[in-house]
Amino acid sequence: MTRVPVIFSEQSQRTSDSPINFFIQQAVENPNSISLAAGLVDYASLPSDEVAEAVASVLSRRQAAQQALQYGVPQGHPPLREKLLGRALALDGVTARDVSLSVEDVVVTTGSQQLLYLLCELLVNPGDLVITEAPSYFVMQQTLESAGARSLSVPIDEQGMNPDALEEVLLGLERSGELSRLRFIYVVDYFQNPTGLSLSLPRRKRILELAQRFSRQHRILILEDAAYRELRYDGPDLPSIKSFDRDNAHVMLAYTFSKPLAPGLKTGFGLMPAELVAPLLHIKGNHDFGSNNLTQHLIERLLDNGSYDRHVARLCEVYRQKRDVLLKALADAFPPALGVRWTHPEGGLYVWMTFPEDVDTGTSSELMKAATREGVLYVPGQFCYLTGENCPSPSNEARLSFGVASPDQLKEAARRLGRAYRSTITQQRALAVS
Amino acid sequence: MTRVPVIFSEQSQRTSDSPINFFIQQAVENPNSISLAAGLVDYASLPSDEVAEAVASVLSRRQAAQQALQYGVPQGHPPLREKLLGRALALDGVTARDVSLSVEDVVVTTGSQQLLYLLCELLVNPGDLVITEAPSYFVMQQTLESAGARSLSVPIDEQGMNPDALEEVLLGLERSGELSRLRFIYVVDYFQNPTGLSLSLPRRKRILELAQRFSRQHRILILEDAAYRELRYDGPDLPSIKSFDRDNAHVMLAYTFSKPLAPGLKTGFGLMPAELVAPLLHIKGNHDFGSNNLTQHLIERLLDNGSYDRHVARLCEVYRQKRDVLLKALADAFPPALGVRWTHPEGGLYVWMTFPEDVDTGTSSELMKAATREGVLYVPGQFCYLTGENCPSPSNEARLSFGVASPDQLKEAARRLGRAYRSTITQQRALAVS
Repeated sequence: MTRVPVIFSEQSQRTSDSPINFFIQQAVENPNSISLAAGLVDYASLPSDEVAEAVASVLSRRQAAQQALQYGVPQGHPPLREKLLGRALALDGVTARDVSLSVEDVVVTTGSQQLLYLLCELLVNPGDLVITEAPSYFVMQQTLESAGARSLSVPIDEQGMNPDALEEVLLGLERSGELSRLRFIYVVDYFQNPTGLSLSLPRRKRILELAQRFSRQHRILILEDAAYRELRYDGPDLPSIKSFDRDNAHVMLAYTFSKPLAPGLKTGFGLMPAELVAPLLHIKGNHDFGSNNLTQHLIERLLDNGSYDRHVARLCEVYRQKRDVLLKALADAFPPALGVRWTHPEGGLYVWMTFPEDVDTGTSSELMKAATREGVLYVPGQFCYLTGENCPSPSNEARLSFGVASPDQLKEAARRLGRAYRSTITQQRALAVS
Repeated sequence: MTRVPVIFSEQSQRTSDSPINFFIQQAVENPNSISLAAGLVDYASLPSDEVAEAVASVLSRRQAAQQALQYGVPQGHPPLREKLLGRALALDGVTARDVSLSVEDVVVTTGSQQLLYLLCELLVNPGDLVITEAPSYFVMQQTLESAGARSLSVPIDEQGMNPDALEEVLLGLERSGELSRLRFIYVVDYFQNPTGLSLSLPRRKRILELAQRFSRQHRILILEDAAYRELRYDGPDLPSIKSFDRDNAHVMLAYTFSKPLAPGLKTGFGLMPAELVAPLLHIKGNHDFGSNNLTQHLIERLLDNGSYDRHVARLCEVYRQKRDVLLKALADAFPPALGVRWTHPEGGLYVWMTFPEDVDTGTSSELMKAATREGVLYVPGQFCYLTGENCPSPSNEARLSFGVASPDQLKEAARRLGRAYRSTITQQRALAVS
């Protein structure tokens, strides 16, 4: 049968397949590989007993059960929002009044990804500008492309996004008359995906000041993605950029329960400038008129009875050990003479490797082939760069995740990666000589 | 402090507040009212024991627990998709082969509302055309407006959407050269929200034939919203339009667990023409990369152990009784001489009332004021009409829901509505005389 074609929307045509599917396919085709590519979390520490207890508790009380199984409100279960606000304020050591926030500024979403998506819909017309870090979170890259945003990127270093470079970009936009198209600056400022690096305290203040200073005719917002904040293994906690936004005017702060609790609960939330809340909820009303209500009730219970706090503390122990094992194994597998560097994250789930500039890490590179042969999977760094106007895209980097592999697997994965790397450079040198 | 303005997207500016918020506000302000407005489901029959048992069962097995709490795949938990396909085929009495469907054509979403939203994003550019029923489901109206769709409507009668009128609209589009802008026809074809009416068997076939016949240069799709299909109290089940779409080319069929199981689980699914699945999942990948996974596992369990079927059977008993009580009470409260008509739905949750043409049901109408005074809330019919180019919007209709009120409340609500109506027409006549 010949069929006439389906006509897809312009947005659909801008929306490409996720690189995640490439990694999944690769994992399926290489079942004996150890994946340092998957963004999954540690299986063994998933809180099944705690969740079972919380659901049982919610559903055993008649009124609570009926509420949890009925429709909720689009903004999220009010007692949950109270607790979320309270926790967020406590993390930053501020009062609601200090930062002009109330429970009405809290919005519960289907993971923090839904919040990122809703905010793009709320703020971005095709052709509008967004500033991100280079490298940055690749699902956000897809989301920005789908929204038709033009991305500008600012490099990050050991202190996070470089504010001098940010200022240069802002001045450039002002000079070119394009500042009016800039909607927000996206920063993953705790143990960033993909580098594991955090934004330093002075830079947090400076970036907010820049957003404020360049808000001349319109508001330049900051989307602060704090997904990994609570997965902290060393060093002091840093206050959120939001905590310096005393008038609740510039910063949209996104949190998730996917990393510190369980991805299967697919629940996140945001603290929003008040005037964004109603239009955000109008859009969310059409998306789903409210995220999964049962899950909101069970998370409220886990926060209430202390299970969540105990779980995060345990989880930090688990991941601290895995991080240490991976860093030690990388040091063993890559002696300094090999010229390979990597980050030493104080939290989160990722280590970022930088190979010598002539070593390509891409999907069809010799290194990838050798790694696949050895049985270890990584994410080529290129996936983590936005394809924007001023965006670099180095080809010699890789993201390693220590989320899902066991300590023994991490050790073995580093050995395999070391062998893959050595065989690649041996071959490369042979080719260079021949 | 003076603030520079936030610039919102064009889509945000097209996205208005949901009428639901008006009803919620009204309910809050009138706490002693009985709501026939709320689209909630019956509280007492919510399956709290069944859900508790299913969650306990999933989380007590180590491997199942770890899977349910980990990230899932964007398309949905594969064993769940298998069961969803099996059930959908069984309802229609067809095999997968008969209708060219496989488990790869099933997509699990955050309620069926997310599916409706994703399909608008997938298919509709601002200015594109969509045909709907008049009246129709008001959240879809908001969603279409947000997408920038231009809506054309086709009246429904006791047999559902009128195919002759649909053909007229299609011919008109062909004559005006606008057929190329038509993306899909949206039908709620089982016990429709808001009228309670269903699409008859001959019309199901005829509407599909029209979509096929007018697919001259491009595919005209049908979005079949079967949210209420399993809430059937009388009469035979009707095959879905999809069951006649033997090549899986034209019909996107949407189901939900919100009505037949529990809204708090916020889970729906669709059966899609195969070529729509990948682009749909690219978009969903950015929305949330997969709906709540724990809930998908628990629903799979409820389908597997028979709880779901038993629950639907019980629920049909509950709602059949409530429908009968409401219809009887309306007959008592509105003797034929009053000139008020209403539908007698064989399923679903809604009764549609038509008052004499000079009786306004709107939010600031005398009838609404009198009803609020008497303590009964309804949805003005106008909310259920799309504001499209050829869309009528009668002002003398009302949607009554028997979902949430108890049988005694339904009786009392009908009495109150009858009193409100009588006082309204008495006043109207007095004004006419004076």
